[in-house]
Amino acid sequence: MISMEFLGTGILAVAIVGSGHMAIDLQADSGMVLFINALATAIGLALVIKIGMKVSGSHFNPAVTLVMLLLKKITPQLAFFYISAQIIGAIAGVGFANLLFDQKALDQSSIERTGSNLFFSEIFATAILLWIILRFPKRDDLIAIYVPLWIFGAILFTSSTSFANPAITIGRIFTSSVVGISPESVIAFIAAQLIGASLGLLAAKNITNTNKEGNE
Amino acid sequence: MISMEFLGTGILAVAIVGSGHMAIDLQADSGMVLFINALATAIGLALVIKIGMKVSGSHFNPAVTLVMLLLKKITPQLAFFYISAQIIGAIAGVGFANLLFDQKALDQSSIERTGSNLFFSEIFATAILLWIILRFPKRDDLIAIYVPLWIFGAILFTSSTSFANPAITIGRIFTSSVVGISPESVIAFIAAQLIGASLGLLAAKNITNTNKEGNE
Amino acid sequence: MISMEFLGTGILAVAIVGSGHMAIDLQADSGMVLFINALATAIGLALVIKIGMKVSGSHFNPAVTLVMLLLKKITPQLAFFYISAQIIGAIAGVGFANLLFDQKALDQSSIERTGSNLFFSEIFATAILLWIILRFPKRDDLIAIYVPLWIFGAILFTSSTSFANPAITIGRIFTSSVVGISPESVIAFIAAQLIGASLGLLAAKNITNTNKEGNE
Amino acid sequence: MISMEFLGTGILAVAIVGSGHMAIDLQADSGMVLFINALATAIGLALVIKIGMKVSGSHFNPAVTLVMLLLKKITPQLAFFYISAQIIGAIAGVGFANLLFDQKALDQSSIERTGSNLFFSEIFATAILLWIILRFPKRDDLIAIYVPLWIFGAILFTSSTSFANPAITIGRIFTSSVVGISPESVIAFIAAQLIGASLGLLAAKNITNTNKEGNE
Repeated sequence: MISMEFLGTGILAVAIVGSGHMAIDLQADSGMVLFINALATAIGLALVIKIGMKVSGSHFNPAVTLVMLLLKKITPQLAFFYISAQIIGAIAGVGFANLLFDQKALDQSSIERTGSNLFFSEIFATAILLWIILRFPKRDDLIAIYVPLWIFGAILFTSSTSFANPAITIGRIFTSSVVGISPESVIAFIAAQLIGASLGLLAAKNITNTNKEGNE
Repeated sequence: MISMEFLGTGILAVAIVGSGHMAIDLQADSGMVLFINALATAIGLALVIKIGMKVSGSHFNPAVTLVMLLLKKITPQLAFFYISAQIIGAIAGVGFANLLFDQKALDQSSIERTGSNLFFSEIFATAILLWIILRFPKRDDLIAIYVPLWIFGAILFTSSTSFANPAITIGRIFTSSVVGISPESVIAFIAAQLIGASLGLLAAKNITNTNKEGNE
Repeated sequence: MISMEFLGTGILAVAIVGSGHMAIDLQADSGMVLFINALATAIGLALVIKIGMKVSGSHFNPAVTLVMLLLKKITPQLAFFYISAQIIGAIAGVGFANLLFDQKALDQSSIERTGSNLFFSEIFATAILLWIILRFPKRDDLIAIYVPLWIFGAILFTSSTSFANPAITIGRIFTSSVVGISPESVIAFIAAQLIGASLGLLAAKNITNTNKEGNE
Repeated sequence: MISMEFLGTGILAVAIVGSGHMAIDLQADSGMVLFINALATAIGLALVIKIGMKVSGSHFNPAVTLVMLLLKKITPQLAFFYISAQIIGAIAGVGFANLLFDQKALDQSSIERTGSNLFFSEIFATAILLWIILRFPKRDDLIAIYVPLWIFGAILFTSSTSFANPAITIGRIFTSSVVGISPESVIAFIAAQLIGASLGLLAAKNITNTNKEGNE
């Protein structure tokens, strides 16, 4: 289970950072860079969620693991191992992607991502992410479709390009590519993601779960 | 139910207006701008329809609510609340998207969208939209796929880029981005959408429902 | 049934010609023009196939109707009406798309599409199209997915951009947009499509139907 | 069965090489060239996997056939015929695609693809490919979705653009288009693919199959 969380988050990080290197190496149109990155991220996510669902529950995201801890669906100890595996996996994946594109394995990003608009973007993106996950409690097949679909969209229409994942956010410190984030910007991103996760939990409890009998 | 209609229409509005800001900020290729906007709209729509289907029926569109009222599938009172929630939700979503991209919350668009060709585009786009919804009366899962698919396509091949939704049309007054519409252009758009919705109802009654026994 | 064939082919024609006008009006990147046209065509096709399947069988293509006639799944008389409705529907759809983009309703294309490489492209595209349709005889749901998927791809990787449909080919005479075809080029295209359809029938009989028991 | 492996690999090769010719002929944006190629490849793959699954098992890839031989799911003799059909099919498909775009049927690529980063890209892409195939042993429908999805993504985020198939790699020697590979670069690619396939087998045995009871 823990190795699945490590590998899944790592593969997701390769998709995000690898497509960032690729699009820039190609000197693609700026809209194309964003689109390729969004598409690659969604595909990576769709794949690892499907592969890992029956093994680890396919969290790959500390915000998800923490909400599951809050809902007592995971023990504190396992949650600790999951989150550790996710963070280490994300960093390892970023390093591997850097190597695949002939860069230093671990570099440090200098891209500052600050401003209240980015902060609210992360809250929004993570809130809907958690809402989706909690909306379909017994429908893993729907989560495997709608989570990557949401992230695909949210990268295109939020100003932060929807990191929405503390482990991936930490991993993205370690690349000089366009998808990086400077270390100073990370804390606010993670704070926003955790606030968003809480709001997603609230939405699921108050809006969609009024509909007790059915879970779609 | 009413809060679902508010939130769903709002999230859809964020997708439409946010992706408009994003594509322009990037100075993307003009075809890419349209494609990113169409894709983001389709994804936003796919997601909110799925989340809200068992809660509110996922109208998110006064043209849909009015047809459901005509078919007596919703009471006049609830229809009134639905439509109000949709319009307020659309405006709120547009405002939120503007803020996410560091713009004034509520601006006023000066993009004129007039001409009989745009008028007929809106009729066409909304007619097929309603036809799809009424074509599969007991197959919510198909509506959740084919409605966003149709809108995805229709944005690419109609000259009005298929607003096809009176609430979203009103919301789009309040942004200075490329997806806006000037207040003077709105009435004709809404008239066309309502004409289109009626034609969609006719098509469903006369063409596909000759096939009484099956609903796909 | 016949009105479904008329409307379905018409909507498909609007998707193809409308997206052609749109992409050129935008002065999009040349790859984007092709991609938008391919995507719009696939979406239009996916939609009308799904809407019409239980009503008319969703041919929308004389090459398909002729193969069904050969397999005695349709009477000669009905086949005649189907093909007439498809051709008239295609021309009407092209005219409507021209009007939506403020062009003369019916213009005449001067784009010559000749050469043995285009001829073989049409054979190839139509052969696989028919193979797919005959491969899954009792699985309408699969046809509704894999037919548009094939056309989406074939537009991108054949030199003729895969017209693969005699009715649509005739309709595309009547537009001055990039997706048009000059009247002189039409006969060879239709001949290639009919040869392709026959080859598709052969492939289905000899390769995939050796597997008698199952149809997916 | 063997003719299915021949035709399926051939159609896949047409998709890959045809889209390469197309994108370059159009002088598309460099990101668009990659995207069109990735999309066409994924669509071609999705289609032939679905058509051939019940006929030949839809290998279309010597790395897959060799792993199936190792797992004793195919006899050595049949494996030999499969691999031969795949290689001949790939070359035939490349030749056909060259002709469709008015090129010499069989040319020789001079594009060198070397470097340890490309080597590791091929290992990575092929490892995950095999992991997916072995992850869902009784779910052909999932393989038909997730294999093309993975290749779609991997082309976008690996530096080798994920050939991940020895037969296709050999076929791609014979085209002067952007998707070609020089003969000298082929051995290392195939070696990497076979190493990757072994790692995929290991991952399937050790990570996802700990979950004995279920296969999704």
